[in-house]
Amino acid sequence: MDYTTLNNGLKTPLLGTLLACTAHIAAAEPLQIQDQGSFSVGGRIVTAPGRFDPIAHGAYRPGSQESAGQTLHGDHAYVFYQVPVNARRLPLVMWHGYGQSGQTWETTPDGREGFQTLFLRRRYPVYLIDQPRRGRAAKSTASGQLAAAPDEQLWFGIFRLGIWPTLYDGVQFSPEPAALEQFFRQSVPDTAAIDLEANIAATTAPFARIGPGILVTHSHSGGMGWASAMRSENIRAIISFEPGSNFPFPEAELPTPVPHIGGLAQGIAVPDADFAALTRIPILIYYGDNIPAAPTPENPGQDQWRALLAIARQWAATVNRHGGDVTLVHLPDIGLHGNTHFPMSDLNNREVADHMARFLKTKGLSD
Amino acid sequence: MDYTTLNNGLKTPLLGTLLACTAHIAAAEPLQIQDQGSFSVGGRIVTAPGRFDPIAHGAYRPGSQESAGQTLHGDHAYVFYQVPVNARRLPLVMWHGYGQSGQTWETTPDGREGFQTLFLRRRYPVYLIDQPRRGRAAKSTASGQLAAAPDEQLWFGIFRLGIWPTLYDGVQFSPEPAALEQFFRQSVPDTAAIDLEANIAATTAPFARIGPGILVTHSHSGGMGWASAMRSENIRAIISFEPGSNFPFPEAELPTPVPHIGGLAQGIAVPDADFAALTRIPILIYYGDNIPAAPTPENPGQDQWRALLAIARQWAATVNRHGGDVTLVHLPDIGLHGNTHFPMSDLNNREVADHMARFLKTKGLSD
Repeated sequence: MDYTTLNNGLKTPLLGTLLACTAHIAAAEPLQIQDQGSFSVGGRIVTAPGRFDPIAHGAYRPGSQESAGQTLHGDHAYVFYQVPVNARRLPLVMWHGYGQSGQTWETTPDGREGFQTLFLRRRYPVYLIDQPRRGRAAKSTASGQLAAAPDEQLWFGIFRLGIWPTLYDGVQFSPEPAALEQFFRQSVPDTAAIDLEANIAATTAPFARIGPGILVTHSHSGGMGWASAMRSENIRAIISFEPGSNFPFPEAELPTPVPHIGGLAQGIAVPDADFAALTRIPILIYYGDNIPAAPTPENPGQDQWRALLAIARQWAATVNRHGGDVTLVHLPDIGLHGNTHFPMSDLNNREVADHMARFLKTKGLSD
Repeated sequence: MDYTTLNNGLKTPLLGTLLACTAHIAAAEPLQIQDQGSFSVGGRIVTAPGRFDPIAHGAYRPGSQESAGQTLHGDHAYVFYQVPVNARRLPLVMWHGYGQSGQTWETTPDGREGFQTLFLRRRYPVYLIDQPRRGRAAKSTASGQLAAAPDEQLWFGIFRLGIWPTLYDGVQFSPEPAALEQFFRQSVPDTAAIDLEANIAATTAPFARIGPGILVTHSHSGGMGWASAMRSENIRAIISFEPGSNFPFPEAELPTPVPHIGGLAQGIAVPDADFAALTRIPILIYYGDNIPAAPTPENPGQDQWRALLAIARQWAATVNRHGGDVTLVHLPDIGLHGNTHFPMSDLNNREVADHMARFLKTKGLSD
């Protein structure tokens, strides 16, 4: 598949694939939903100095608005949840990756059911997060500048769909142009600089509300998710899809950084007590296909994952050496080939879900 | 209720109201969902001049990224949909107001079921839109600057909850501080200037995909919704909650603008053929309570609604004079008192839903 013809009038994705898949889904068993809804959690409140006068300053006058004495609630997370009938005990709290929102767990780019619906069918309560300053949690206490800079071909490579404009042979991504169109449109910008502390605080907050659960992370939220688990004992397990940077190590055991063409993959040092939190829960990490074993300067999109996978393997070994329970699955090793950076929405995502469900059962997390 | 104590440590909304309401909802009948998911529709594609080199420019280097030859997909709408078992024929496509996202139709600020779930229970397919440059559809083809300016007390007044910091007597908004906290956090900024053309194009696009349906608008989307119906014959009815500006009139019948303390409420002129589209479908318009009959410079938050309601009444009469079918309901006139600018999430939203459902049945839209 070659995407050089992508821009030829593709304005609305009304193509055959999506419609066919809708019909497919409609034939499935109905979902039985006991409860659903949304809420905001975490966040900060800023108050401008002065006093708000509801008479003098109570009319909307764009460009000349008076902030004195007014508040701004921001930096919270948005959470949409669904609880199926006869639900399992521990909900799955799914946290998107860089440039994504909760949509990443909904319908796949090619129109099939994503992990949200697939795990509702398996009777797990599912909570989808939009992290602070992203998506429906876009309201920020910091100002931001958004540059509308074209960069989608860069991510096509980094997300390991292929080398632009060509998909990898056997990649688990639909060759239909409508699928790539949907994929590109799923991404959302940050409305202000990413604030790791706000993200970690806001995404542990749902666990304070809902109680014990399983955190599911992807890419950039992988690193933040380790930090979340250090703070919240309600995080009883972590499933992480292709976690990125910020693997936390005891300072004395930091691995040698691994260079790649875009920089360095490295661990971060954390206090031993924080690290210990990660030795007390089951952790499952997935990486997909097309991650080279040796440096590949001729393919920058792949090269960073080689370095990150190397650090991830050292991290798993380190946690397990301290009594932890980390399972790292490189999907080709278990016979699942062609996965991109998004195994949860790839063409074989049902097989990935099957594997994850078996893990949860094995670890006693599925009652 | 007085909100001057609002900022006393209220960081996470884990208060009694929300939890009590979750228990209430959990006791309701399960939802039977035949199909659910999300997709993007409409939008534009920008391509930077030049050629993308996946080797030279394929690594992520923040701050020094090369855009040459890359694309940017933006200005689409995000749509989340659910289709209940044994669904009625015409779906409800719900479009939020100014500063809001699809969340506005989900759980109410005080933790009860919003129109999304209430109408799924009534067997309507429900589609929730995030308009372009908002929420999960935040990716824009235009750059934007986001000023984190405190302004929530302004909106407390304009949305007619009360005169800050005091709720109106009998207002249909919970006095629990957690409800106001949720309400403030439901709002989301625009990631670039509002683009009416992009919004109208992207929000008629779902109807091209799903076929005939009923458009449900709120506030700012009210005006855009009239324009959408001029373009899409698949919009078979409109329910509009407190539509704002941009009521479209034949040029010869433009009403005299009505001044209010923040400006002028006025119609906009459209070609007769466009106007005629609005005479061919049933339209139901709601306005809530605390809208004064006479100018109230001492309450700017209320005053603009007096002017808009006056224009809305002239618009209803004009459409009906041309053979149209507009019903304008000022909720206090039918015995529903205390409604804010958000009747669909007010404390009496079930009664409002009952009324709306009866209207749909009366107009033959509920089969």
